[in-house]
Amino acid sequence: MSSSNTPQAEQSTTHYPLSGVTVIDLSHIYNGPYATFLMALAGANVIKVEPHGGEHLRHRAALGGGAALPFAMLNGNKQAVTMNLKDPRGKELLLDMVKKADVFVENFAPGATDRLGLGPGDLRKVNPRIIYASSSGYGRSGPYRDFPAMDLTVQAMSGAMSVTGYPDGPPTKCGPALADFFAGIHLYGGIMTALYDREKTGVGRMVEVSMQEAVYASLASNLGMYLGLGKKSPQRTGNRHGGMAEAPYNVYQTSDGWIAIICPSDRHWAGLIEAMEAPQLKTDPRFANLKLRVQNIDAIDAIVGGWTLQHKRENIVALLQQHRVPHAPVRDMQEVISDPHMHARGTLQDIHHPEYGDITVQHSPMHYEGVSRMPLRPSSKVGADGREVFVNWLGVSADEYQALVKRGVL
Amino acid sequence: MSSSNTPQAEQSTTHYPLSGVTVIDLSHIYNGPYATFLMALAGANVIKVEPHGGEHLRHRAALGGGAALPFAMLNGNKQAVTMNLKDPRGKELLLDMVKKADVFVENFAPGATDRLGLGPGDLRKVNPRIIYASSSGYGRSGPYRDFPAMDLTVQAMSGAMSVTGYPDGPPTKCGPALADFFAGIHLYGGIMTALYDREKTGVGRMVEVSMQEAVYASLASNLGMYLGLGKKSPQRTGNRHGGMAEAPYNVYQTSDGWIAIICPSDRHWAGLIEAMEAPQLKTDPRFANLKLRVQNIDAIDAIVGGWTLQHKRENIVALLQQHRVPHAPVRDMQEVISDPHMHARGTLQDIHHPEYGDITVQHSPMHYEGVSRMPLRPSSKVGADGREVFVNWLGVSADEYQALVKRGVL
Repeated sequence: MSSSNTPQAEQSTTHYPLSGVTVIDLSHIYNGPYATFLMALAGANVIKVEPHGGEHLRHRAALGGGAALPFAMLNGNKQAVTMNLKDPRGKELLLDMVKKADVFVENFAPGATDRLGLGPGDLRKVNPRIIYASSSGYGRSGPYRDFPAMDLTVQAMSGAMSVTGYPDGPPTKCGPALADFFAGIHLYGGIMTALYDREKTGVGRMVEVSMQEAVYASLASNLGMYLGLGKKSPQRTGNRHGGMAEAPYNVYQTSDGWIAIICPSDRHWAGLIEAMEAPQLKTDPRFANLKLRVQNIDAIDAIVGGWTLQHKRENIVALLQQHRVPHAPVRDMQEVISDPHMHARGTLQDIHHPEYGDITVQHSPMHYEGVSRMPLRPSSKVGADGREVFVNWLGVSADEYQALVKRGVL
Repeated sequence: MSSSNTPQAEQSTTHYPLSGVTVIDLSHIYNGPYATFLMALAGANVIKVEPHGGEHLRHRAALGGGAALPFAMLNGNKQAVTMNLKDPRGKELLLDMVKKADVFVENFAPGATDRLGLGPGDLRKVNPRIIYASSSGYGRSGPYRDFPAMDLTVQAMSGAMSVTGYPDGPPTKCGPALADFFAGIHLYGGIMTALYDREKTGVGRMVEVSMQEAVYASLASNLGMYLGLGKKSPQRTGNRHGGMAEAPYNVYQTSDGWIAIICPSDRHWAGLIEAMEAPQLKTDPRFANLKLRVQNIDAIDAIVGGWTLQHKRENIVALLQQHRVPHAPVRDMQEVISDPHMHARGTLQDIHHPEYGDITVQHSPMHYEGVSRMPLRPSSKVGADGREVFVNWLGVSADEYQALVKRGVL
């Protein structure tokens, strides 16, 4: 982002919004770690506490295949320590850390930290300013509290699957892990709200988020369509408009990929006709206005899809840009990870990771004017920052630290 | 949430985290309005500024069909005013509002507010403490800055579509408007971070978010699979596991709906065998361990799907609960909107809306201990709070207010 000549722009090199905030992070997989990763990028000191051997996602990463990148994506810029919280001294040290911290984050099943003696009430006793942040599948109260929650089951329960896919096909999961990440970013919002509140009141609060509730708002169109049209409403419309109110509105196959094309108005349809060099369509009574185009949607999709199939995706993109027709190529993971735009904005960066090699990782989607981008640090190896955290920061003696490592407590 | 005997719990009835925060909200449709709705529920005073006739989503709502509910869902608890910002006095009054406000939110195409003389620099001149929050399809910088952005095109560009659907079918849009809502909730997080920062520094900052970048992290599994397996990785796996590493893992048809079933381990598979009353499977060499089950995934899906088809969904749910097999019914919009769990938690509430009748609206997915839930107020009619805002809050004389309304400025 270009900076301007303002006092805040000049502070840029050293100022981060969350400088001085310490986070004790017991979270794992995607949900909590995304929230704490964003905090780390905003300047917080995030101490990731894992069991010996590391959290689940590290295990998956060690198996090869696909999980190394997600771990590296979400755990850079954090300090990594291991602790056995069932050991009395381990638990005692965790409470000592909480005394010096601002935020505690976990995404275990509800009740798990209470059973360890590390629930919200336990933490508040040692530090009334601590913000206890919890994310789970269904939340800490209510009849579904203990239901098993994985991204797929929450996609089913939340309704996201029932509105994805084709009218004559099965409900379909959304490829992105939307339940996990919607929860994670809501958790970030909740923590920031509690931090702001603490500036006014001096007390920390428990904040909690559930995957199910975090997905709900994203179904606004589908819920609205259901309420508006009732049982007549199409549950799933494939790639057509959810309300079946626009045409062309679909994803069309090209000779070498797919492209989304939308014509919300007559002007866009006229542009598409020019791009297709099909002037006879201008006067075709089936397509004279939006309502008629929707009525003749099968014919229109056949015409547009027949045209796209004869051309390369990039040529169609160029033509539609020229004729100002809303469109977008459907990009695969390789195209997304090498996206020149996100790289130009510094949101994607290529790094060398000591464990995982040359990879592309993300920076925060939140850009602040007058704050320079935090340099990205690769995720630490499991337990790698133990000495730094326990001896240098917490004040455990070097001798005790060694003994606790030996005993498997740290 | 159950409250506990703590000082903060006792403050509950009157304390909201964002009391005293004023938001000038020029945003429209889903993205920005979701962010400001969450602020309103946390106690902020949100003044929704619309053109005469109302923002886009109100237009859609007026057409009937499906958009009334989304408008009501996202705009409760806000004050609604209309302003013509191209009129010099209108613009002047907006700047007067900014002087008294903390946060300004917009999700126009990049550059639109600059052209009105209401860009970040213009606002900072009248109020250095203002937080200017902007959300757009691709952000305020970079080569795609001016690309058209609707949820479908961003789903295509961000990669979300390419990983949704079946291996032999087309890329498929995710039913939820995930690009809009991921951007909206990241914007909320960014605003809260800037508010917290302002407590320390005394200056407001511009914060910006893009739909494209806000979606990126949710593709972690898919990006990881691509990087791990390269061109061999399955782009789309339907409802099967994204990494093809678990079976059973699918959505199966029942006699009256669909159900998701997952068996990540031998224990879960054993439970499913008991639920299916199919003891012969215990010793079937094709299914002896997870690896073999994945190799014989077609056979396993045929067996499980054959069983589910003979039973009602609710009966299978009961059996799988009993045998502790992870599962979830695929719920439609009617089931989601009447979800007893979210109603029990107060996250869904039935209200009578003066314009739209008896509807179900949502409360914030962020729950704070010691803060009671803000009572939900129905969305205001277009311009309904003009007198309250301009005369009572801003101090415009009643006579001038009347004259400005007459002239179409307010």
